Amino acid sequence: MERGSLSDPRFVLYWDLIWVGVMRIALGIEYDGRVFCGWQAQPSGRSVQDALEAAIGRMAGEKVRLHAAGRTDAGVHACQQVAHFDTGARRPVTAWVRGVNSFLPEGVAVLWAREMDERFHARFSATARHYRYLLLNHPVRSAILAGRVGWHHAPLDVEAMREAGGYLLGEHDFSSFRSSECQAASPVKRMTRFEIVREGDLLRLDVSAGGFLHHMVRNLTGALIHIGRGAAHPAWMAELLAARDRTIAPPTFMPDGLYFAGVSYPADFGIASEPAFRHYLV
Amino acid sequence: MERGSLSDPRFVLYWDLIWVGVMRIALGIEYDGRVFCGWQAQPSGRSVQDALEAAIGRMAGEKVRLHAAGRTDAGVHACQQVAHFDTGARRPVTAWVRGVNSFLPEGVAVLWAREMDERFHARFSATARHYRYLLLNHPVRSAILAGRVGWHHAPLDVEAMREAGGYLLGEHDFSSFRSSECQAASPVKRMTRFEIVREGDLLRLDVSAGGFLHHMVRNLTGALIHIGRGAAHPAWMAELLAARDRTIAPPTFMPDGLYFAGVSYPADFGIASEPAFRHYLV
Repeated sequence: MERGSLSDPRFVLYWDLIWVGVMRIALGIEYDGRVFCGWQAQPSGRSVQDALEAAIGRMAGEKVRLHAAGRTDAGVHACQQVAHFDTGARRPVTAWVRGVNSFLPEGVAVLWAREMDERFHARFSATARHYRYLLLNHPVRSAILAGRVGWHHAPLDVEAMREAGGYLLGEHDFSSFRSSECQAASPVKRMTRFEIVREGDLLRLDVSAGGFLHHMVRNLTGALIHIGRGAAHPAWMAELLAARDRTIAPPTFMPDGLYFAGVSYPADFGIASEPAFRHYLV
Repeated sequence: MERGSLSDPRFVLYWDLIWVGVMRIALGIEYDGRVFCGWQAQPSGRSVQDALEAAIGRMAGEKVRLHAAGRTDAGVHACQQVAHFDTGARRPVTAWVRGVNSFLPEGVAVLWAREMDERFHARFSATARHYRYLLLNHPVRSAILAGRVGWHHAPLDVEAMREAGGYLLGEHDFSSFRSSECQAASPVKRMTRFEIVREGDLLRLDVSAGGFLHHMVRNLTGALIHIGRGAAHPAWMAELLAARDRTIAPPTFMPDGLYFAGVSYPADFGIASEPAFRHYLV
């Protein structure tokens, strides 16, 4: 929108009134979960949301409130979190990337920004969430990727884990993999993707669902490792699901290798709906 | 060697005398350069060498002194540093891996251990050192791999960088790429490998030489980026080499993406002589 070409003061006033209208901005965000105490704003100010709201606020010249597609726990990373905020400030889209990044600590970065219409909501418009778990399967832990990969020292049977994962696909009551602190309205979720591949010493687990319960991926990873090391048969996964009882499933696995990998939205919002891994994360 | 089967006290004494003889142990070591103030022991005790000597000393029950193939600066990582120490302690080889790792902080790990004969010296027996530089070439820096990759925001011409690197192969006086603090006896080194490839947004630079001068790889990386962004022609690399003048070459590039990737030894020492990347480092 051009402004300066019209010199009639009343006309300028008219445009200013329109400009006071709120813009909705969506952001793609990468962060290192170890640097923060999780996504959600905390009195300590040490969450991802706190860091981003402070940086965006400096760029906007006003307070903003971020809404994320998925709230991640402390230690859980994001290759591509999506969040939106509303602001009266008008800035070129690059300001919400380069400008905001210049105010952020190194553990978090804005990858892209996009002006959205008011129908878009980062959380409620999402049709699917994608997670990746990276698991180092080697006798020795990794020093360089400490906190960035999970670790299991003994050999794992990926084929058995894949078979077990097959029972998870489709709509199920995932109560056996739901933390006691979970606030979801229903434990029933539809899992649309389960893939596990080995690349050298690293297992890469990709799961997609409309939504996930609290600790669900870490709890599933714990059960998969239990099966992978031969402590239970793959069909045990079906029994765990059917039991709808968290107390009989293996413990929550470490957050270190868990990545929030992307969000799908209806195509008309124009946001890439595939999980987006910057390629160096395997 | 068995011991308990012989009950003659004099015989046991005899064997004890042999056992008092020193064992030489070689270690393969991975570390995150950000956690430490470089390889070399410091009064602060915060170097990689300090951490390892303390952990090995606990396992050995005596002080040990480590000798490394190459001393790395603060911020420089190692996928496979090789070091050796002498000890009168007799432990199964696994104790030098699993046992020592249990005493180490998460930023450093022993990958393997091997008993060596006294002809072996981690530094003086080495015939080649291998370094890798990982460079993120993308408008936005990486939050997850902060400190683990170098970063250049503008597009780089990898073909020009490869051509420039061709001038480095063979024996040259590398004074233009030598830090003023370098203690090497001679600035002449023989570079046997120069490879640069792009994988998505990441450039992977691999260099091998008999030895490297202080800051040599970071200084070469700075010059290569200068050429890659079009500020100079590839042949400028030959001019820089010929000038033997550090002051005309571009500044030292950030350590973040630099990995000490391995060491070669004569085959009879039985240590794998190829650079060893645990595969997740691209």
